[in-house]
Amino acid sequence: MALIVQKFGGTSVGTVERIEKIAEKIQKARASGDDLVIVLSAMSGETNRLIDLAKQISDQPVPRELDVMLSTGEQVTIALLTMALIKRGVPAVSYTGNQVRILTDSAHNKARILQIDDQKIRADLKDGRVVVVAGFQGVDEQGNITTLGRGGSDTTGVALAAALKADECQIYTDVDGVYTTDPRVVPQARRLDKITFEEMLEMASLGSKVLQIRSVEFAGKYNVPLRVLHSFQEGPGTLITIDEEESMEQPIISGIAFNRDEAKLTVRGVPDIPGVAFKILGPVSAANIEVDMIVQNVAHDNTTDFTFTVHRNDYQAAMQVLEKTAQELGAREVSGDIKIAKVSIVGVGMRSHAGVASRMFEALAKETINIQMISTSEIKVSVVIEEKYLELAVRALHTAFELDAPAKSGE
Amino acid sequence: MALIVQKFGGTSVGTVERIEKIAEKIQKARASGDDLVIVLSAMSGETNRLIDLAKQISDQPVPRELDVMLSTGEQVTIALLTMALIKRGVPAVSYTGNQVRILTDSAHNKARILQIDDQKIRADLKDGRVVVVAGFQGVDEQGNITTLGRGGSDTTGVALAAALKADECQIYTDVDGVYTTDPRVVPQARRLDKITFEEMLEMASLGSKVLQIRSVEFAGKYNVPLRVLHSFQEGPGTLITIDEEESMEQPIISGIAFNRDEAKLTVRGVPDIPGVAFKILGPVSAANIEVDMIVQNVAHDNTTDFTFTVHRNDYQAAMQVLEKTAQELGAREVSGDIKIAKVSIVGVGMRSHAGVASRMFEALAKETINIQMISTSEIKVSVVIEEKYLELAVRALHTAFELDAPAKSGE
Repeated sequence: MALIVQKFGGTSVGTVERIEKIAEKIQKARASGDDLVIVLSAMSGETNRLIDLAKQISDQPVPRELDVMLSTGEQVTIALLTMALIKRGVPAVSYTGNQVRILTDSAHNKARILQIDDQKIRADLKDGRVVVVAGFQGVDEQGNITTLGRGGSDTTGVALAAALKADECQIYTDVDGVYTTDPRVVPQARRLDKITFEEMLEMASLGSKVLQIRSVEFAGKYNVPLRVLHSFQEGPGTLITIDEEESMEQPIISGIAFNRDEAKLTVRGVPDIPGVAFKILGPVSAANIEVDMIVQNVAHDNTTDFTFTVHRNDYQAAMQVLEKTAQELGAREVSGDIKIAKVSIVGVGMRSHAGVASRMFEALAKETINIQMISTSEIKVSVVIEEKYLELAVRALHTAFELDAPAKSGE
Repeated sequence: MALIVQKFGGTSVGTVERIEKIAEKIQKARASGDDLVIVLSAMSGETNRLIDLAKQISDQPVPRELDVMLSTGEQVTIALLTMALIKRGVPAVSYTGNQVRILTDSAHNKARILQIDDQKIRADLKDGRVVVVAGFQGVDEQGNITTLGRGGSDTTGVALAAALKADECQIYTDVDGVYTTDPRVVPQARRLDKITFEEMLEMASLGSKVLQIRSVEFAGKYNVPLRVLHSFQEGPGTLITIDEEESMEQPIISGIAFNRDEAKLTVRGVPDIPGVAFKILGPVSAANIEVDMIVQNVAHDNTTDFTFTVHRNDYQAAMQVLEKTAQELGAREVSGDIKIAKVSIVGVGMRSHAGVASRMFEALAKETINIQMISTSEIKVSVVIEEKYLELAVRALHTAFELDAPAKSGE
């Protein structure tokens, strides 16, 4: 008999009919004898409806009060699902974040979980009840209602699984698992049976938006086996777990991630002196703009070129900051481009395999795709290319790394 | 400097625009130097929307879970109003029933307030904040969310006023006060400046639905001066307070209440023996049907006739119960009528004035309205008449008791 935490997102509980289906699913899962803790999001659209309401009052709604409002969305779904379970003869009880109690810090709208009291939940499980918990919300030391920020229900699920030492945390979504790349771009993309936390982090942060990054970090930190599954289709999903090299025949590359949300900015001919990187990026960061890739090449004639990428929405603001800095530094030229895309190959297997990067560059060269920037980490290689070549590049890499092949059993 | 509790109902906070208007009103009230505690209902329609959602899951939604859902309605309005106040530079903070904490018993959907912790509120008032509290909700000893039942926000307002020993509890509604009778029936009806708790109770329970009965009882018990006012119109409203005979020139009758929601049932020729009333009403009460008026006249030939009224919705059920009882008792006949109306004159003044009832009967006789049943209490006389004469009877009584006259100043 296992203890499983199951998390269902907003579309999974978006209508009463869907809530009934989830209840049916839980009833079946429980018939197999497992102890179940369910974490729910608000009905899809509800959080936006509430934010819209608040914005009608003020462009900058008071964060504490916004949390009081936003937390109501999950309160409705946990009650509805619990009713649907009890109707089916499944003993169940709902808890808000405050009732559990999920203690967070006081950073309203983006709070972090500090501690979870598992006493009530354990008692209910012992009494044979399914426990239905509101995701996304908690309470601070002073009793103020807090929310964890967008996607925070995943984090609640993982945190609960960690606190309860659950056997698995299952995240139900509208996809049936994590794929080698986006199937809309590569029809031959296939579902991965397993992936490591590290790989998942790289995949997620690079644009495969199946799971919230924070929840994967959390799961990795506390070693909570995470499983991504489809809410309304049967199937094993994808298990995200630690890297068990002994038991897993490691593929070199697990997947191809990509992202067209970025823009690049370059400043040429800056003096090649210590501290220049900080002088360029300090003001960008001070303007609250997040920087992703940063590339600086070797200097010549005592000057160097410096390139970095930001989210496209921040491009104009970043350019303004950079132009000012360039003038101060006496740089030769500032340029930028928003028509770029980032493509990355991700896999823990590349740690022990040489030549992965060159195989990537070769595949791109074959398609005569020019590489504008390169950056690498232990388990990924990212390149920036012209946006129009994105699909071509992803397909070429998917084939080059033999990801098109049907999934091997037991992989 | 006074401490005032102001309660605004669902229509007063039904839209963002109205919430802004209420915020403006509170800003002005605060400028006069009063300490303010605001109690809010959910946006009008929201509670029904949530109940509908729950009913889609189950005809009999689990009461505990229904409360988890229903309590979200006020949580949204308190947050919105607090945002609107802070936007105006008025320091404010919102509290749910749990946060206050408003301790209730565990009777979900119809809980009773046991105790209110005034510590947080007093601290906030001391710090110059307006405190915005969710009406209608509380929390039981075990931390379960409870609701007080329909109209419970009035009760929250009064209970808070009692706990804080507030100078006044102001209930803002869509009428500008309590009237001598329904102005839709009698255009000459006039607003009362003052009315006693007892009179208000009789008026409210008889169908003048300005205030929830429980809140008036509560206010009377703890002697909290209650004032009924219009949310969006200026005016003194109606003060509901204890009977201060010294200072008030007591009118004989304060108002005419009426009700067409009842039906009457009669059983004729039951044996006139001890315990027969219980034998007739016991089964009715056991079927959870509430009985209002009960009339039993003197016996003749060792049998008696017995008549009572119930809510029209309960008429069929009550009739079934009564027919069974009548057979068991060997009664002669059972009959009933749903086309009836109850008209009552209410006033603490009648305690010390003889002849009030006869003046009532005289006025009805003049209009040749037949009286079917009569029942009296210390401060009211009620009669049941044929429904079609209702308006005629109310107007005749309003004139007979000189209620048509314009309000005297200082009354």
